Amino acid sequence: MLNIRILGSGNAGQVPVWGCDCEACERAKQDDTFRRGPCSLEIRTELGVTLIDAGIPNLAERYEFDEIQRIVLTHFHMDHVQGLFHLRWSERPEKIPVFRPDDQKGTDDLYKHAGVLDFQPAFIPFETIQFDDFSITPLPLLHSKITLGYVIEKNGFTLAYLTDTVGLPETTQVFLANKTLDYLILDCSEPPTSTAPRNHNDINLALLAYHTLQPKIMMLTHISHRLDCWLMEHGDSLPDNMLIAKDGMTVI
Amino acid sequence: MLNIRILGSGNAGQVPVWGCDCEACERAKQDDTFRRGPCSLEIRTELGVTLIDAGIPNLAERYEFDEIQRIVLTHFHMDHVQGLFHLRWSERPEKIPVFRPDDQKGTDDLYKHAGVLDFQPAFIPFETIQFDDFSITPLPLLHSKITLGYVIEKNGFTLAYLTDTVGLPETTQVFLANKTLDYLILDCSEPPTSTAPRNHNDINLALLAYHTLQPKIMMLTHISHRLDCWLMEHGDSLPDNMLIAKDGMTVI
Repeated sequence: MLNIRILGSGNAGQVPVWGCDCEACERAKQDDTFRRGPCSLEIRTELGVTLIDAGIPNLAERYEFDEIQRIVLTHFHMDHVQGLFHLRWSERPEKIPVFRPDDQKGTDDLYKHAGVLDFQPAFIPFETIQFDDFSITPLPLLHSKITLGYVIEKNGFTLAYLTDTVGLPETTQVFLANKTLDYLILDCSEPPTSTAPRNHNDINLALLAYHTLQPKIMMLTHISHRLDCWLMEHGDSLPDNMLIAKDGMTVI
Repeated sequence: MLNIRILGSGNAGQVPVWGCDCEACERAKQDDTFRRGPCSLEIRTELGVTLIDAGIPNLAERYEFDEIQRIVLTHFHMDHVQGLFHLRWSERPEKIPVFRPDDQKGTDDLYKHAGVLDFQPAFIPFETIQFDDFSITPLPLLHSKITLGYVIEKNGFTLAYLTDTVGLPETTQVFLANKTLDYLILDCSEPPTSTAPRNHNDINLALLAYHTLQPKIMMLTHISHRLDCWLMEHGDSLPDNMLIAKDGMTVI
C-alpha cells in the first residue's frame, strides 16, 4: 500500500489571500474545496504516515501522535514548517524523526527547542535512503533557501515532488531524465510571465519541465490566487495529463 | 464601547498537548470549549479590533482585513506571532500597524518580509500611547525575550494584561501599585511549584501578584495542561474573584 495525498496546494499567501476579492479568492470563500493551504504532501503506507513539509498549522488535530512515522522537509521557509512549532511541545518520550536539507539555520528557534522533533543529519543530495516502506532520493532545487525535491519510489512506481523551485539545476534535470516518472508534482506558483520569475515556476517553466521530463502524469502545486485566476480562464489550454493539485486530493 | 475577549488562553504547548492523554487533554479532546489556543486578546471598539498578540494561525478566517485596526505584540516568541506569517501576504494597499517591544531580531523573517504589516517604532516602556479609542501603556515584564505587558485604559476603566512573565520587575510593580485595577489578566502557566519557575508564573507567584496588586478581578491565562489538571482538583481553593481564562471568554 502506498497512498499519496496532497495536503496543501497553496503558495505562502494561500487561497483566499487575506482581504482579497479577486475571482479565485471569492470562489474559495464561497466553496472550501477551492481553498489552498500551505504546500505539503501525505504519504501513507501500512506502517504509518510520512509528511513532506509541515506548514499546515493544525497537524495535531489531523494526526494522532502514533500515526506519524517521520517528517521530511523540503526547506525551512515558514509556510513549509509552521506546523512544527506546536507539534514540538508534545511530551511523549518517543521522538519524531525529521529529515531535512543541509540548512544550518533552520527556522527561528526550531533547532534550539526541538522538543519531540528529532532532526536527522542533513540529507546528501542524490543519495537514496531506503525506509522500511519506500525509498526517497533528495534532489537539489533552485530557491531562495537551500531546498530539496524528492523522488519517492516503491515497487517500480516513481513520483517526483519538486517544490519550491524556479526551473531545475542541471544535475537534478539529468537525474530525472534517466527515470520513468509516473508522477511529477511541480511547483507552479504563477501564470505565464514575460519576465523570468523569482524563486517559483510560472506556467511557461512548468510546461518546459513537462516537455523535457515527459512524466506520465504531471500535477501543478504551490499555486497562487493569480494562477487560479488564470486557470479559471485558460485551464483548458494545458495538456490533458497535466493536473492541478487541490487540497485533500488523492494522487495515488 | 470597549469589549475585551480572550482569544487564546493556552501556553505554547496548547491544550490538548499533541499525543497527551492526561485528564485535562482528554477533556479538551471531548469538549472543544476546554481547548486552549495561543495566548491572545481581542479589544473591540466602535472603531474596530485591536489584537494583543497574533499566535492564532487562522486569523484571516476570523477577521476581515478592514476589521483590524492594529496589532500589539507582547514579544516575538512564535506562539505569540505565528498568525502574522499568513496575514503579511495580503496584497491590500493599506497597511496594518503593528506595535511592539524593542526587539531588533523579531521572529524569523517577519521584519525582512513584512508585507502588509507596518512595524511601528518600538514602544518606550511606561510611555502611554493615546489611540483614538483607548490608551495603552507598555510595561516591562520578565521573560526569556524582551517582553511588554499592557495597561489598557478608557473612561476610568483600567485593565492590565501581563503575559509572558515570571514575577514582575520592580518598576512595573510600582507603576501598577499606583493604579486601581479593574482587571488584572496575568500569565500563570503552572501549578504551584517547589522550585522557582522559569519564564512563567506558577500559582504561587500569581497569588503573590494578587495580594500585592489587589485587582478587583483577576484572571489567569497562558495556561498549561499541567495547570488545568491541578485546577480540576484544586480550583475551588482560589480566591472568589480569581477567574480562569477560557478561549472566547468575554472579559468585559
